[in-house]
Order: sequence, then C-alpha cells, then structure tokens
Amino acid sequence: MKKIPDEIVACLKENEEYLILLHQKPDGDAIGSAIALGKGLKQLNKSVDYYIETPIEDKLLFFEEIDCFNRQLKESYDVILFLDCSSSGFAYSPQTMPKAKVKLVIDHHKSNAHYGDLNCVEITGATAEIVYRILKALAVEIDEEMADAVFTAITTDTGSFQFSNVTNDTHIIAGELYKVKPSYANLSKRLHNQKNMDQMKMTGAAIHSLEILDSMPIALMVLDYDTIVKYGGTINISDDVANVGQNTIGVAITALLKEVRPGDYRVSLRAKFPFDIHKIALKYGGGGHERAAGFNFRGDIQEIKDDLMEVYQTQCEQDETI
Amino acid sequence: MKKIPDEIVACLKENEEYLILLHQKPDGDAIGSAIALGKGLKQLNKSVDYYIETPIEDKLLFFEEIDCFNRQLKESYDVILFLDCSSSGFAYSPQTMPKAKVKLVIDHHKSNAHYGDLNCVEITGATAEIVYRILKALAVEIDEEMADAVFTAITTDTGSFQFSNVTNDTHIIAGELYKVKPSYANLSKRLHNQKNMDQMKMTGAAIHSLEILDSMPIALMVLDYDTIVKYGGTINISDDVANVGQNTIGVAITALLKEVRPGDYRVSLRAKFPFDIHKIALKYGGGGHERAAGFNFRGDIQEIKDDLMEVYQTQCEQDETI
Repeated sequence: MKKIPDEIVACLKENEEYLILLHQKPDGDAIGSAIALGKGLKQLNKSVDYYIETPIEDKLLFFEEIDCFNRQLKESYDVILFLDCSSSGFAYSPQTMPKAKVKLVIDHHKSNAHYGDLNCVEITGATAEIVYRILKALAVEIDEEMADAVFTAITTDTGSFQFSNVTNDTHIIAGELYKVKPSYANLSKRLHNQKNMDQMKMTGAAIHSLEILDSMPIALMVLDYDTIVKYGGTINISDDVANVGQNTIGVAITALLKEVRPGDYRVSLRAKFPFDIHKIALKYGGGGHERAAGFNFRGDIQEIKDDLMEVYQTQCEQDETI
Repeated sequence: MKKIPDEIVACLKENEEYLILLHQKPDGDAIGSAIALGKGLKQLNKSVDYYIETPIEDKLLFFEEIDCFNRQLKESYDVILFLDCSSSGFAYSPQTMPKAKVKLVIDHHKSNAHYGDLNCVEITGATAEIVYRILKALAVEIDEEMADAVFTAITTDTGSFQFSNVTNDTHIIAGELYKVKPSYANLSKRLHNQKNMDQMKMTGAAIHSLEILDSMPIALMVLDYDTIVKYGGTINISDDVANVGQNTIGVAITALLKEVRPGDYRVSLRAKFPFDIHKIALKYGGGGHERAAGFNFRGDIQEIKDDLMEVYQTQCEQDETI
C-alpha cells in the first residue's frame, strides 16, 4: 500500500481538537470516512466533532457513531478536516466557520483544488482508502464499526468493486477488513440490493417506460408526476434508476425525465464513450460532465429527444468507427 | 495466501497430457477456472483438451480460448482434471470416459465428495482462487485472458464480492489481477449489469406484478404466459428476477410463478432464515433446499399462496422472536 506523507501523519499526531466536515448530501464514502477517521482519532484520545448535513440515507443509518454527529460546536479547533470534498464550496459548513490552526483536506477527487493548508489528495477508489492507510500509519486498532465504515465507503464508491477507480490497493484494504469481521455479506445486501416497496415499484415504472428513440441506441425513460406521487415522491427514486437505460445492451445514451411538478422535469443524462451529453445540459443551464449531466426543463419533451438524436448523429458523422 | 499442497503441484509439473472437465451447465467460475488453468498448463508446454457442455452463456463467450473447447479427444490422458464439480456425477463427461493415470479434483464446494485420486478441495469464494494459487505455485505468467478468466470466476461466484464466501484471500487475488490489467470495469459491467431489452422488460413486468400477501412479509410475482411470450420466452427471464421480491425491504419469503405454458407454472421459492420453503417444493414433487427451492405446478394459484402463508405462520408460532 502507498505510504501516507509524514507531514499528514505528524499533523494528526500532534493536534488534539478536530472538526470533521463532509460534502453536501453525504454519501457512503463521506459518512464512512468520517466515522472511521473520527473514531480512530478518539481512540488516540483526541476530541472530535462532526458537522454533517442531514438527512442521511436510510441505508447508512446503522452506524452508532452517527449519534455523535452535529453536537454543539466549539469556537475554534486545532484542525478542521475536509473529507471527500473536492472544493471548500462543495463542503457542508457551519454559517460561521470555527477558527482552526490547520485546514487539512483528505480527498480522492481528480478535480480537488488543494484548498487546505495541508492536502492529502490521491486518486483512489474511495476517500476511505486514504483514511484506512492514515489509521494504519497512526497504529490505530480497527474495530468492527470502523471496518464497516471503510467497507461501506469503498463498496458504495466503487459500485461493489466494479468501477474503473478500483486498484490493487482497493482490494488489499478490503481484504484486510476480513481480519476484523468474517463477512460483509449482510452489509453488502443492505447497501446495494435492498429497496423499499416504493423504490422497487418506481424502478419497475421506469423500466416500463423505457423506450428506444427511432432505432438509435438512445434510451428514454419518463417518470410522470402521478407515478412519482403514487410511490412516495422523488426521495424514492433510487440512484440506479438512470442505469436501467444504460444497462440495456445496445444503449449508448440514456435520458431519465422525472416530472417533479406538473410540467416541470428534472432530466438526468448518461452516455458511454465517445458521446458527450454535457453540451445538452449546458444548453438548458445545467451541469455535470461529458458522460453524466443534468438540468431542469419545462416544455415539449420532443425538444430533448431532438437534442439527444443530434448528439448521437453528429458524433457518428465525425467518427466513422461508431 | 494459503499454500497449495506439494503433491498437487508435483502432479501438475510431472504430467504432460490433460483433459479438463467441468460441471453441467458451466458457469463463470467453471469456465474461468478451465481457461486459466488450461492456458497455464499450455504455457508449460503441456497438452490440454477441454470437454465442456454447450451452449455457454452469452456473457462468457468473449474468451478466445473457447475456440479450443471440445476438439477431438484422446483415448487416454495422464490427468483428468475435474474443476468446480462437487461430485463425479455432476460433471459433464464423455459417454466413454478416456483412461487416465490420475483423476485430480480441484473444487471449492463444501459438499465435495473427494472422489479423485488426488483432491485439492478448499472452501474458497471461487474454484478459480485455488487455480490462481496453483498457477503461482507453478510460476506461470498470468496473461490478460487468464486474468479476465480468474476475475470472471471470482466476481460471478461471489456476487461481485458481496457474498459470505469472500475472504481476505479473495481480495488479495483480485487485487493482484490489477497488476496484469489496469481495469475490470468493462468486464464487470458485461458480467453483472447488462440485460438485453427483453430481459429488462421481463424484469420490469416481474416488479409490476409484485404483491404482498395479506400484510405478511411474503412477496408473490407472476409472469403470465402472454408476458413471457411477448418478451422472447423463458430464456429471457434472467437469474435475478426472483431477487426482486427478496430485495424488497421487509420481505422474508418470495414466490416467482412463471407460466411456461397456459396453466402450467414453474415456481421458484426463496426464503430468509429461519423460513423453510423446501417442504412446499417437496409437496409438489420438486426439490432444492430450505432457502431456495422450486417445482412445477398446475392448478389454482391460491393453493400456493395458502402454502406460503402456512409456512410463515407456523414458523412464527414456533419462534416468538420473529
């Protein structure tokens, strides 16, 4: 495993009072990294506060350490830790930021702006991989909850070890967690497969709506307002719904349209290389990147269909190998 | 990683002519183990024949080594290798079995009967984990196709590293494969997520049919004959359809009824601990085990509903902790 720079380890050994911040809408990697590092620092008799946006996804609510989140903050800390945040603007922060001797950034995003006084930024599968290596460098003993936290972070941010961000180190770390607990099968099920009935039915409705545009490898799915209301609102549209289109063999571009209010759509686009759907999102004031982007839309859905077909056809004209 | 016994390594070093056999309906672990070990032995200038049941699942057909399967067999071999077969009866074998000096069994099933002259049987996530360690003991160089083969075997037999059969060694081996190829993301997608349009629509229809019996944690799904025909027949009912019920939070027992001919149902049952649905399957002349069983049925579906509710209620009466 790659070594953590000495100055990072020294900073965590020398200081006593920590505040942990995460990105907005914290995911498995953010929550897992916070809990593993927070508990590790407490084991070394440091004081640790957490300032974290709620609500936290149901599937992550099993950690006992969550009871320690969002207690009264101090006016100043030795170290403010920014975990899994590519920029300070993306962090969920208190309105009045406490003072700190050091801002320490620990993150795995390529786009990280190195906005800390100290930055431990590496391109890994999950931020928790860096956290795990820090804990090892600090000679902290990994307990079962910390092991669950690191496993949760890695398995959610790597799509159960399937994404291109997985490396040898990812598997070495995951493997070592089996020395703490013999099985992560129940946790994996909880994180990856389980849906409540409304989420399940919403996924079914998305599959039912799946249509292919004009014999092109473009999938369109529409969840209309009535369907969304019927199954408990947008909170029950699980992350993997947009994948329904992309996981269909032969599909290169997917658009998922969620009618969040009558006539108002939130649109999620997904594309495979070399198709660039970011430009569609930009046209409507949205954002994202070439292969995953989104925007808000009110109007005739045909307009979006035309945009999708144009992106596909233009790329095909430029690139005869498609 | 655990050491392979010396006598196994010696057998593979000393002998020259090999025949590889797998279990019937070979899966990712069987095919992957065969290709990795077969190519490894060829690298050591051994001759290797494969006798393997076809058709092989579409998602596994990308291996070039498959071109070497099922060529003319010899009358005798030095070693017949039984890979991933818990018993010799479960192996897919030629009508006239060639002679062999040694029958060598390499397998990871708990129930393995140790039916070989030599047996390398260990409880691992996949048989290919044992194969990988054998290849290392033989100092074989793992090429990209062999790495894909081992990865395919492990990821399919462990449900993408989610099942309780995963160990530290599983991850160590998976990690080492990243030294051969930087990413297994495309392969993972191919193996786990992709469905053709008919498979996707069939899954959607199964979700649409999902109902809960009488406020009990019992899920019922019915794919009627017209739906099955509409989406290309039972071949397009993918393995994970029965999971739709079991992955719904709160569900303990699932029945999937596939109307394969008008009025004729193939029934798949799934249960969580401590519910035993095997007895229902036995009642109708089917088989399986306590948590997964199946049978054929012609009659009023209400009869099956009653059986499911009885299993649930009887267990609840016996066990007050439910």
